Amino acid sequence: MTSAPRREITGFSNPTVKFIRSLREKKHRKTSAKFLVEGLRLLTDARESGYLPEILILSTAREPHPLLEKLEIDLGQTGADVIETSPDILAKITGKSNPQAVAGVFAEFDTSLDTIDRSSAYIWLVAQDLRDPGNLGTMLRTGDAVGAGGLILIDDCADPFSVEAVRASMGAIFTQKLAKARWDEFLPWLRSGKNGAPGQLVAASLRDAVPYRGAPYQAPCFLLVGNESQGLPEDYEAACDLRVTMPMKGRADSLNAAMAGAVLAYEVLASFD
Amino acid sequence: MTSAPRREITGFSNPTVKFIRSLREKKHRKTSAKFLVEGLRLLTDARESGYLPEILILSTAREPHPLLEKLEIDLGQTGADVIETSPDILAKITGKSNPQAVAGVFAEFDTSLDTIDRSSAYIWLVAQDLRDPGNLGTMLRTGDAVGAGGLILIDDCADPFSVEAVRASMGAIFTQKLAKARWDEFLPWLRSGKNGAPGQLVAASLRDAVPYRGAPYQAPCFLLVGNESQGLPEDYEAACDLRVTMPMKGRADSLNAAMAGAVLAYEVLASFD
Repeated sequence: MTSAPRREITGFSNPTVKFIRSLREKKHRKTSAKFLVEGLRLLTDARESGYLPEILILSTAREPHPLLEKLEIDLGQTGADVIETSPDILAKITGKSNPQAVAGVFAEFDTSLDTIDRSSAYIWLVAQDLRDPGNLGTMLRTGDAVGAGGLILIDDCADPFSVEAVRASMGAIFTQKLAKARWDEFLPWLRSGKNGAPGQLVAASLRDAVPYRGAPYQAPCFLLVGNESQGLPEDYEAACDLRVTMPMKGRADSLNAAMAGAVLAYEVLASFD
Repeated sequence: MTSAPRREITGFSNPTVKFIRSLREKKHRKTSAKFLVEGLRLLTDARESGYLPEILILSTAREPHPLLEKLEIDLGQTGADVIETSPDILAKITGKSNPQAVAGVFAEFDTSLDTIDRSSAYIWLVAQDLRDPGNLGTMLRTGDAVGAGGLILIDDCADPFSVEAVRASMGAIFTQKLAKARWDEFLPWLRSGKNGAPGQLVAASLRDAVPYRGAPYQAPCFLLVGNESQGLPEDYEAACDLRVTMPMKGRADSLNAAMAGAVLAYEVLASFD
């Protein structure tokens, strides 16, 4: 039960500092397949979901905390790099003037469709061209709330491993499965019945749609939500098994994509009860 | 049908430029009771809802647009200050390197409870200590979607007139009524039956709550959502007429406050149909 050994870093130009800092940019995350997680709360969410950081960064200004001790003990045998550094260097790494006292670098998960076992959950969220990392994180969180299996990102979505998306997920990035695919990979995958289960594709839509309340949802149900400003392409909607619509009492485009996903997901959840 | 006269501003130190720029800070909005709205889309939402800016700022790099022409014509007789300036100065005003080509300064609305006519809508959203301006704007947008009358902000919420909240509202700040009150003003106001109507106060809660599906909602229904991380204070919940709970299949705090508000608001809307 010994903690991992720590090393101290005092220089801004230290290569590890530079590497961690680079993870704020998508291209560097892509190259290294690592991402940065800030704060003891998210690191604890990760640990409790079975994920440990490859690098743990501790501020010399941190307060002792039992959850941090647990994390250090769990890291003891893993060969993780545990670094102690100044608040100034942490501020540089995170780009924040008041950085959290702890951060961690994790390996990105495998996000291929093959990792999705559709029979493991009744609900799956699917987002197409979702551009806002906050919305993306919120959808992960909603998925967690409704007991969804995970989130499938279609076409050009925001990066789920960005600091903003990870933070907005409130830890759900570690509990929800995550996959990325182009539409023309996703649809054959869904229709193939691979992994031995079918899948109903449901679009939140305004065209040729039935009311979302009491619609004939079937598990596993894949709930497809479109881009924040464009909605879903017409041919994507046409390929769905069911198109449902929600009342819009105000302006035509009044509902946020993540919000529409949540209302719909709760309706599907209730219909399966 | 003539447009308002324009004047050109070329200096960064022009007092109008300084004033508009100051509206990015809450204390200056508070002093002047004005707020900044960026982009032709939001300005058009405002105009279509009957609100015109007191100052209109046009970039010299703007493209002509029929909606902008309409706005300038509507401003013709109002005595509004119409300013033409460089993209550089607009960038300075908005703090963005790629500013929108149009912005406007509006007078803040009266946000006293007296402006709320509770008999004018079946649903009202109420947020307590909601700290994130994006969440606040999203709740305005959700209110618009469900045909709510408006949003009542209790205690220490984010500023609804911040650029972030206005943007996240997608124009709903101009269609939803907005009021601010302390809890100990709000509750007597609600219970007074002033304006000749009752009001049911409903909390999204985990304590002593009934399932949110099929709960006995009554119009006008005031849906109370708590702070993002703390939820509602226990005595606030106790003062509610109805406490409802939503299934949480994952982590205890999995649902975002704005998201919980949307799911609940759609349930109430359906129950009134």
